[in-house]
Amino acid sequence: MNYPNGQKKRPLKKENTGMKINNYSNRGMTLEEDINVTNEYYLEQNRAVVHKKPTPIQVVKVHYPERSAAVITEAYYKRASTTDYNGLYRGKYIDFEAKETKNKTRFPLANIHEHQIVHMERVIKHGGISFIIIRFSSFSETYLLEIEKLLPFWFEQFHKGKKSISYEIIQQEGHLIPLKYQARVDYLSIIDQLYFNEE
Amino acid sequence: MNYPNGQKKRPLKKENTGMKINNYSNRGMTLEEDINVTNEYYLEQNRAVVHKKPTPIQVVKVHYPERSAAVITEAYYKRASTTDYNGLYRGKYIDFEAKETKNKTRFPLANIHEHQIVHMERVIKHGGISFIIIRFSSFSETYLLEIEKLLPFWFEQFHKGKKSISYEIIQQEGHLIPLKYQARVDYLSIIDQLYFNEE
Repeated sequence: MNYPNGQKKRPLKKENTGMKINNYSNRGMTLEEDINVTNEYYLEQNRAVVHKKPTPIQVVKVHYPERSAAVITEAYYKRASTTDYNGLYRGKYIDFEAKETKNKTRFPLANIHEHQIVHMERVIKHGGISFIIIRFSSFSETYLLEIEKLLPFWFEQFHKGKKSISYEIIQQEGHLIPLKYQARVDYLSIIDQLYFNEE
Repeated sequence: MNYPNGQKKRPLKKENTGMKINNYSNRGMTLEEDINVTNEYYLEQNRAVVHKKPTPIQVVKVHYPERSAAVITEAYYKRASTTDYNGLYRGKYIDFEAKETKNKTRFPLANIHEHQIVHMERVIKHGGISFIIIRFSSFSETYLLEIEKLLPFWFEQFHKGKKSISYEIIQQEGHLIPLKYQARVDYLSIIDQLYFNEE
């Protein structure tokens, strides 16, 4: 399940044709778009029920023009109190956050907020499955890292001041998510291995 | 678990002091506010992890003033694709919608959208728990109705044209949710009875 340093470093090139890789690159899909497409596919296939939560917005002023829809004319982005995605898979509650970095050597922990860590800790304590999906966009590599494995690094930063996790550690501790044509970020294949003992 | 017609019709007056009833009324808390307070209390008590999803908003224009936060200057409310609340309780995924009606004789089905029904059906098929919370605000009564019990009424409307569920049926088929001081809409006490065989 773990991919040691250097092994399977570019699975896209091995598993897909060059054509597909080019399609992916040309489209310039963000991780969020890829996950949304994946979740829609899972839903169509009746495999899982996972949705992205709407972005929280604080509405201040709303204008109600006659005969048409209400227009919000002043609003502000609020900080999310939980993670971006949650849902249901094989009877289990799953909950995750997805982050993309252009950094080639490490994943900066500033990408995750403390309240999200608190939330994900609660999830596992209550019997749910929680993880983060990290994409190193320079390499087109996407990893699943269980929250149980993230936590030690998270807490370490306050003692040792190390505010990132190296790419090598993510490779070792995380699980490379296969990128497929429809399930573009097929994270459930990793969940099957990790939590349902399937290959 | 069911409260036959006429029985326990005004539990607030029996279970709480008149003082508290007045407090509730004076505050004029909406069902949504009551559920949010309840969920916060559950979270503090480490009993469950349930959150309301943000309202989905389509952002059209954003203004970025110098030295201050981005201001959304044009946006529109979008229709939610799922339900308002979901989370995790005793290892189970729970998912529900909450609706309030001033109607004294029936609950109009127009309060629920078809895509929400589709979503809640998916949830139970995948092993989750799904229900609606209905408040008859004229009576200060709040009921939990399992999605399994709602579905026959939902589909009936297309055959028989009956676009509501009578108050009496909700009383019989639903479960009166106790209103408490902190867990204002203590829906988990009903979930304990229905899904975990506890009294």
